[in-house]
Amino acid sequence: MITLSDVRDAAERLRGVAHRTPVLRSRTLDALVGAEVFIKCENFQRVGAFKFRGAYNACSRLSREQLDRGIAAYSSGNHAQAVALAARELGSSAVILMPEDTPASKVAAAEGYGAEVRTYDRYTGDRVALGAALAAERGVTLIPPYEHPHVMAGQGTAALELIEEVGELDALVVPVGGGGLMAGSATAAKALQPTIRMVGVEPEDGDDTRRSLAAGERVSVPVPRTIADGQAAAIPGELTFAVNRRLVDEIALVNDHHIRDAMGFAFERMRIVVEPSGATGIAALLAGRTRITGRVGVIVSGGNIDTARFNEVLSR
Amino acid sequence: MITLSDVRDAAERLRGVAHRTPVLRSRTLDALVGAEVFIKCENFQRVGAFKFRGAYNACSRLSREQLDRGIAAYSSGNHAQAVALAARELGSSAVILMPEDTPASKVAAAEGYGAEVRTYDRYTGDRVALGAALAAERGVTLIPPYEHPHVMAGQGTAALELIEEVGELDALVVPVGGGGLMAGSATAAKALQPTIRMVGVEPEDGDDTRRSLAAGERVSVPVPRTIADGQAAAIPGELTFAVNRRLVDEIALVNDHHIRDAMGFAFERMRIVVEPSGATGIAALLAGRTRITGRVGVIVSGGNIDTARFNEVLSR
Repeated sequence: MITLSDVRDAAERLRGVAHRTPVLRSRTLDALVGAEVFIKCENFQRVGAFKFRGAYNACSRLSREQLDRGIAAYSSGNHAQAVALAARELGSSAVILMPEDTPASKVAAAEGYGAEVRTYDRYTGDRVALGAALAAERGVTLIPPYEHPHVMAGQGTAALELIEEVGELDALVVPVGGGGLMAGSATAAKALQPTIRMVGVEPEDGDDTRRSLAAGERVSVPVPRTIADGQAAAIPGELTFAVNRRLVDEIALVNDHHIRDAMGFAFERMRIVVEPSGATGIAALLAGRTRITGRVGVIVSGGNIDTARFNEVLSR
Repeated sequence: MITLSDVRDAAERLRGVAHRTPVLRSRTLDALVGAEVFIKCENFQRVGAFKFRGAYNACSRLSREQLDRGIAAYSSGNHAQAVALAARELGSSAVILMPEDTPASKVAAAEGYGAEVRTYDRYTGDRVALGAALAAERGVTLIPPYEHPHVMAGQGTAALELIEEVGELDALVVPVGGGGLMAGSATAAKALQPTIRMVGVEPEDGDDTRRSLAAGERVSVPVPRTIADGQAAAIPGELTFAVNRRLVDEIALVNDHHIRDAMGFAFERMRIVVEPSGATGIAALLAGRTRITGRVGVIVSGGNIDTARFNEVLSR
């Protein structure tokens, strides 16, 4: 279990390294959803997603000797960039395991931060086992994307900043993939404001956390087909679920149409670029998938999408 | 002539009405241009552009009787929305004169703020004369887009906020159309920091202010063909030029390719949506059209572009 004090420690470590991201308001959004909405823009975080918070917090706890040996991670998404950058910032090195079919731009981004990229076949390889083997072979430390207390605590710093900046909230809406962002956010938010309502958002097709909360234990779903690639988890993490089962009040579900509409709304009415997974909180509000009123925080988790892919997603 | 004190008065009136827009940093941009760049995001301002600042400041000076009679403006762009919203906020009414071929979305936006929209033929009509006639006929007050001391002073509040927030700057880069944003920005910035370098940016094809500064008097150019529709002025304003001839140190020129590249950079690396005119400051830096070093402020003036037009502009 992690505590508010772990999140505060992470915030100390991140000071001057991570961005303190802005909180945006939109009167149009407020009018449409009938609430006062505060958007925490983690799309403006370094590497374009909240993932840098957890990755840096975890990496910064390693000893100088561990840093000198290096860091490993498996990810096709924002955690790859996050660990690559964290390693560079800490004078370490990173080796990242990515699926063979990862877009060249994402490989280039990790390499741009100085990481070595290794690939595997996503259909035959088990990334967790391959990651562990790679770390053992190289003698480096593996930083998983969410199953790690320091990663979860780091992710919670966005919610901490939001509440520090805007004060009391009635609800906080957080995208849920593996559950690390939610675990950290809920830990911070519920400790500061026990009555706050924690609303997770999952893709309709990937509602493993919703089902798991209903069942009282971790339940898996078939690998989800969704444009929200950052939320394509098929089963909650063990550590994240141990936190989330205690602290999450509700899971709202959104489909690809809701997400596209939210991305278009964010672009045209808020002038921000949001990737599909990052837009699910706004999508849940706009589509009325959660009944919230009063003062509501929403974490926009990331904005890593290029103009070609953005156009492709919106024109479907 | 306007002074810093006029800009400060405007800031008082705008408190709680206009957004205090965030300042974003991009380490990628800093590395590319070799400077510390501070981006003042007026694309996050109400109505999506800095224009709200000047329009509201000017409208808020009207007497209750004038407000009850109403406000008029001519604009095909962001000033239309700005006056429409300012009128609504002040319990007044607005009639906006727009060219017949204004995109339906812009007409709808002004009407959405409660304004009445009247159209004219841009090829045969003179908007200044038509605006004056409309105002006289209705007995309403005309608020011009830049030729007005309260409009200029209002626009200067963005630069004031930027300098208050980040401290001393070596240069401030500002898009120049009619010159109102520059006049207000330069008035505030030079009063606070006399050694600051004021760099205006114009489209190559619409370099009327650059030519006018060189000539020492207002010079007109043929109506410019540029994607930067907010900067398609053919001659500087009289009032704005009287300020800018004293305070502007340099005009940098950018073409449509530079602007497109800057819009793509802003989208993919900063995750912000910027309209063509709003991107000219970033364009000037990325294209090396101005030699700046040290701490540099850039005003991103607006973000009003829909996803279809954005895609069209970027795919040319």
